[in-house]
Amino acid sequence: MAKQDRAVRTRQELIRSAAEAFDRSGFAPSSLMEISVGAGVSSGALHFHFGSKRALGAAVESEAARILQDIIAPRPCERPASLRNLVDTSHVLARRLAEDVVLRAGFGLAGDAAWQEDVALWRVWHDWVGSMLTQARAEGVLAADVLIEDLASAVTAVVVGAQALGSTDADWSPRQAVDQFWNLLLPRIATAMVRP
Amino acid sequence: MAKQDRAVRTRQELIRSAAEAFDRSGFAPSSLMEISVGAGVSSGALHFHFGSKRALGAAVESEAARILQDIIAPRPCERPASLRNLVDTSHVLARRLAEDVVLRAGFGLAGDAAWQEDVALWRVWHDWVGSMLTQARAEGVLAADVLIEDLASAVTAVVVGAQALGSTDADWSPRQAVDQFWNLLLPRIATAMVRP
Repeated sequence: MAKQDRAVRTRQELIRSAAEAFDRSGFAPSSLMEISVGAGVSSGALHFHFGSKRALGAAVESEAARILQDIIAPRPCERPASLRNLVDTSHVLARRLAEDVVLRAGFGLAGDAAWQEDVALWRVWHDWVGSMLTQARAEGVLAADVLIEDLASAVTAVVVGAQALGSTDADWSPRQAVDQFWNLLLPRIATAMVRP
Repeated sequence: MAKQDRAVRTRQELIRSAAEAFDRSGFAPSSLMEISVGAGVSSGALHFHFGSKRALGAAVESEAARILQDIIAPRPCERPASLRNLVDTSHVLARRLAEDVVLRAGFGLAGDAAWQEDVALWRVWHDWVGSMLTQARAEGVLAADVLIEDLASAVTAVVVGAQALGSTDADWSPRQAVDQFWNLLLPRIATAMVRP
């Protein structure tokens, strides 16, 4: 492997190991030692890539933001199915939060009292949900009496809550909670055009 | 003040101070020193009442559980308004979570990766929501096609999510998010009898 490839790979391993530590114990109790051991690199290598635990936290958040951007990226031919796209994407986000420790740790940092940065991944999600709903309204697939702001808040709160509960209670499935929310709501807010 | 009253008061002050520290920084970074200083007592007095930080965490959770039980306690003459009672009580819970640091810290501990106990306040809330919905169904005020389990999960996830977002984003109002959820949902799940 070329020297540069190795450096990129070491950096990715450190981000993954930091995400696992933050996800497991929270930001404050995670030590640089356990992060370097988890990545299989020396603490010298860790310090070469990241000057501090805060720098590692910022790297986890920024990688999670990139993954989120990828999840909400526009897909070809999605119109006029913006409401369907919203439902599908919230399922994808719930699934990816369950599977991808970096994404989960990035969102988790926003809820970690010891972490005070402000990437606010949930705000990115909330704004995207709002834009999909605005599009759905223009397409005439959203019932006329639904307030976009109410629905954007509810969708955001449900995904955050489902994830928060899932991370502390093994019996709670975030994917199932997001399913249940849409089962309940979709037939009641969509015009006949997009009902399942 | 009698000696016993003073002891009770000191204990309450320590629980409040611990809740403030956990709420501010999370469980792991909170020190016994800052908790005793915040309560205005000596570290000797802290150790007299609580043998460890874990014992303080357990006291915060147990006090929060008592407050939650009080919020969901049956009120006289509430029948047949179980759905209305559910909506009102979820507003009360959102408001009390915003105002009461002990309640907030108790729920927060359930989402704190460094805290591994299992009082599971959210499960108490989820089960109570389920019991109110079962009652609403029996009273005929819940639309026939609403699955109780779907709605109980959604209500739980929304309150958890609204609280989690509120604790990390000053622009997000948990009370408003719970309002918005019910504005959206209530007219769509209630029979004419209880519509606002």
